[in-house]
Amino acid sequence: MTKSRARNRPHPVKSRGTQTSSRDAIWLWGQHAVASALANPKRQPIKLLATRNAADRIGKVNVPVELVGGEQIDRALPPAAVHQGLALETKPLAPVSIEELIDSGARRIAVLDQVSDPHNLGAIFRSAAAFGFEAVMLQTRNAPPITGIAAKSAAGAVESVTECRVVNISRALGLLADAGFHTIGLAGGSRRTVEAAVSGADRLALVLGAEGTGLRPGVAKACAETAHIPIASAMESLNVSNAAAIAFYLSRAT
Amino acid sequence: MTKSRARNRPHPVKSRGTQTSSRDAIWLWGQHAVASALANPKRQPIKLLATRNAADRIGKVNVPVELVGGEQIDRALPPAAVHQGLALETKPLAPVSIEELIDSGARRIAVLDQVSDPHNLGAIFRSAAAFGFEAVMLQTRNAPPITGIAAKSAAGAVESVTECRVVNISRALGLLADAGFHTIGLAGGSRRTVEAAVSGADRLALVLGAEGTGLRPGVAKACAETAHIPIASAMESLNVSNAAAIAFYLSRAT
Repeated sequence: MTKSRARNRPHPVKSRGTQTSSRDAIWLWGQHAVASALANPKRQPIKLLATRNAADRIGKVNVPVELVGGEQIDRALPPAAVHQGLALETKPLAPVSIEELIDSGARRIAVLDQVSDPHNLGAIFRSAAAFGFEAVMLQTRNAPPITGIAAKSAAGAVESVTECRVVNISRALGLLADAGFHTIGLAGGSRRTVEAAVSGADRLALVLGAEGTGLRPGVAKACAETAHIPIASAMESLNVSNAAAIAFYLSRAT
Repeated sequence: MTKSRARNRPHPVKSRGTQTSSRDAIWLWGQHAVASALANPKRQPIKLLATRNAADRIGKVNVPVELVGGEQIDRALPPAAVHQGLALETKPLAPVSIEELIDSGARRIAVLDQVSDPHNLGAIFRSAAAFGFEAVMLQTRNAPPITGIAAKSAAGAVESVTECRVVNISRALGLLADAGFHTIGLAGGSRRTVEAAVSGADRLALVLGAEGTGLRPGVAKACAETAHIPIASAMESLNVSNAAAIAFYLSRAT
C-alpha cells in the first residue's frame, strides 16, 4: 500500500491522531507552559527535566525532577525548542466531547476547521483564554494533537481552555445551534461584519477555516451566518490567529 | 574577544544587521511573496528558481527564470521552507528614514521595540497592510532584516508596507510627536484601553514591545500615553502579532 493511499483511508487503524496521542506521553517546555501544566490538577505529569537554575525558579513540584544540563533537555525536544531549562513529560489532557462541552455551560467557543499550524493553534488558545472563550473545538482528524509547540505558543492557555474534539464539524455546528449557540463562520466576502454579527449573542461559536483555503463550503453552510473582518482590498486575508484574536476581542463576554 | 563581548560592542564593524543585508541578496519564496515582489517596481530581482508548474502559474516575469526541480529549491532555502515551487533571489528593499516617512504623509505607523520573531514580524506587516498602516518602524539594530520567513508570513505585505529603520526608538517617537502623531505604547496595566486611546487620532503611531519583556521603560516613557487591550486577569499578555492585529483593527483609518 502506498503512503498516499494509507493517508486517504477513511478509518486508519493506526494514526498519529488523538486516539494514539491520548495514551502516549508528550513533552511540554518553557516556563509558562510547564508551570501552568504543573498547576493544573487534571494533568498527569510523569517527570520534569530541569536545569539547576530553572528548578530553583519553579520551586516545589509534585513530580519527579531530574536535574540535568540544558543540552540534555535539547536532546529530548524538537530542534530549536526554547525550553528555558524546563521540559515536562506528561500525559496529554483528554479532550471533551461536544455533549460535555454544551453541558458545561460554556458561552464562547472557537471552532477550527482544519487549522493545523501549531504556532497558530497555540496563539488561538492564548487569545481564547484572554477573551473568555472557554473552549476550542477541533476535528478528531485533520487537526494535530495539542503538544509541545502549540502549548509553548499558548503560554499556559492549553491548561485553562478546554479542547473539544468532534468527528464532523458541520454536524457539531448543528448541535451547537440546537443548544442555543449563534454560529458564525469567518469568511471574506460575506455581507455582515463580525462586529455586527456577534453583537448581543449570549452563546456564541466562531468558526475559523484554514489559511489559504478558508472555511470548507459545507462548514460555511452549516453556520447560522458568515461574517467578515473589514480589511483593505489589496489583502486577501489575515493570519488565522490574528483574525481569531480580533474576532474573540469583539465577542468577549463583558 | 569573546562572542558576548562582540555582541555588546556599541558599533560593530561587521554585523548581520541592515548595513550588511541592504547590500546582500536575499531569498523570498512562496506564491504570494514572490508574485508580490515581482509586481513591486522597487524590487531589484536577480533570478527566479521555479518548477515547471509554478512557472506556468506565475506567467511572464521580468527576471531570468531557472526551471528546476522542487528539491533544488529546497536546497537554496532554509529547512522546511514552504516554497510552492518558487524562490526569488532579490536585493532587499531599502528601508526609508523617519524623515522620509513623515514627509510621505503616512497617518498610521506601527513601531516595534525589539520584536524579533520573523513569523510575528511577517504577520504584523500583513495586518498593517490589512488595516491601512503605511509603515512599520524598527530599530536598525536589535531587529532582524526582513527576509524570507518574515516575507512569507507577510503574504506580500512587505512590498506595500514601508519598512522604516531608526537608530533610537525613543528619539524617533519624539520626532513623530513633533510631526503631529499621537504616540501610544501598548502596555498591560496602563489606565486607558487602546480603543479609547486611539479614538479620533488623525496621525497615530502604535508602539509594541517584545514578548516577555514588553516595552522598555525608556520607550514607554517616550510615548504620549500607554494603553492596554483588556484581557482576562489569568493571562499575562497576548501574542505580539495578535495584540498588533487588534490594535490595528481598532485604529484603522475609516
